[in-house]
Amino acid sequence: MPSVVTNKMVIIGVGLIGGSFALALREAGLVKHVVGVGRSRENLQRARKRGAIDEIANDLPSALKDASIVFLATPVGQIGGIMAQISPHFEPGVIVTDAGSTKQDVVAAARTHLAGHLKNFVPGHPIAGAELSGADAADADLFRNKNVVLTPLDETSVDAVKQVTELWQACGARVSQMSAAQHDKTLAAVSHLPHVLAFLLMNHVSYSSAQNLDDPLPSDDLLRFAGSGFRDFTRIAGSSPEMWRDICLANREALSRQIDAYQKELTALREILARDDGEALENVFSSARKARQRWLKANL
Amino acid sequence: MPSVVTNKMVIIGVGLIGGSFALALREAGLVKHVVGVGRSRENLQRARKRGAIDEIANDLPSALKDASIVFLATPVGQIGGIMAQISPHFEPGVIVTDAGSTKQDVVAAARTHLAGHLKNFVPGHPIAGAELSGADAADADLFRNKNVVLTPLDETSVDAVKQVTELWQACGARVSQMSAAQHDKTLAAVSHLPHVLAFLLMNHVSYSSAQNLDDPLPSDDLLRFAGSGFRDFTRIAGSSPEMWRDICLANREALSRQIDAYQKELTALREILARDDGEALENVFSSARKARQRWLKANL
Repeated sequence: MPSVVTNKMVIIGVGLIGGSFALALREAGLVKHVVGVGRSRENLQRARKRGAIDEIANDLPSALKDASIVFLATPVGQIGGIMAQISPHFEPGVIVTDAGSTKQDVVAAARTHLAGHLKNFVPGHPIAGAELSGADAADADLFRNKNVVLTPLDETSVDAVKQVTELWQACGARVSQMSAAQHDKTLAAVSHLPHVLAFLLMNHVSYSSAQNLDDPLPSDDLLRFAGSGFRDFTRIAGSSPEMWRDICLANREALSRQIDAYQKELTALREILARDDGEALENVFSSARKARQRWLKANL
Repeated sequence: MPSVVTNKMVIIGVGLIGGSFALALREAGLVKHVVGVGRSRENLQRARKRGAIDEIANDLPSALKDASIVFLATPVGQIGGIMAQISPHFEPGVIVTDAGSTKQDVVAAARTHLAGHLKNFVPGHPIAGAELSGADAADADLFRNKNVVLTPLDETSVDAVKQVTELWQACGARVSQMSAAQHDKTLAAVSHLPHVLAFLLMNHVSYSSAQNLDDPLPSDDLLRFAGSGFRDFTRIAGSSPEMWRDICLANREALSRQIDAYQKELTALREILARDDGEALENVFSSARKARQRWLKANL
């Protein structure tokens, strides 16, 4: 069990992630008072109605007064600006953690804006579905059996990591640690690349009549015949454009490398088709199916 | 309601599709006696146990004797060979239809092997999930609210199309007609391309340590952090390698054109990343999300 019950937690960005974290910790009895900070008062009111927060912040200084934990759960592009705003109001000992989907940029922002406070800063990333957004989508079970990756800095104290680890474990999550660089490379492959592929496929099929195909197909006709495989493949293309803009920009180097490698594999498959090589094609598909079966067996 | 109850139906390939068709027609009271033909006696026995078929064929001549409908539901690569085997044993008036995922190759095979019988041949394709296989996966509701595309030849009689249409409608399906060429182009975009992308992503992530990346990542570590978005995106990578080999070879021209167009879009996105263009990136993602929302609203 966690060693500390949080008296006052400040959540900045009370959407799916921030709201779910608050609901889960409240359900676990680990937080007494939650203050919500956000751009949309309407969303904060919904968060209060749902019991995710107790109080809507009027200003940052009073929100941060006596806080034990500050949880940054805005889109990753805003985290630097928020750090700059909040750091003058920190009280000694307050733990700061975040839920940004990329970590090297968050660490860089912390080095700029939280320079005197790195001991208590624990960068984190809960890997949980996020194609819904807003406090309405918050769910106390969102993180159950999901991975949360913490990427502590050299300066981060063992105790701060321990406290944040225990909070996530109380949400039912599996917590692991790696470097911010390793995190960003890993997520570029297993998350950022698939999102890009899904967004592009959706556009490809929807606007192919406008494309430079020799023989364009009307997109309405195309999409009428898309089935459940297409639906599942493109589910992540329903994700927030703003959030994914930020993620792709923040991690554009690792993502670009993944796109290049994937393009090579598409080209290789294109060549297999050109030489009508059924055996090679079946091998590609068969190794993919086996890899997926192994993964499902090991992880789900 | 269908005008004709089928006295005897022969299903060649009693897997997910063949078995589900039989179960649905039986539930609708439209078929009296179903004979199953297949490579695996074990699978046919399971199909009989599940009530999909009444009888396991011992030989083709007796299976086809007095049959009203023959349903070809094997992987599409086998359909030509099967047509050659069965055509000598047709009785006059028997309707032949298929469930092949590509249609130009099936039509070409019919022109070769069913030349005297084209009036009663109705090429068809039920667009229903197929990542499970075998008679065990058969489900009377598989085709409910799913699209079935028929691609009749000029020679196909109106009456044969009507009978096959009514059978599929009795399974709860939405039946439409288009040319075999239009079908194959449509499916290349909405089905074959996404399957290829999913198979390749699974390989990409699983074997990236073996690839020519500057800085390879261990694949076990990568896959540990793949979440539910990855799982849904790659669901179709669990599909049958043999079936997808056949589909991709049969439709390789249209599929290759789709791969080429998609690669151009990946390259364009790569350039957006290279010039750090947040606005263009958000537009790409936002148009994809809107297209998907429109599609879900119109079709599901």
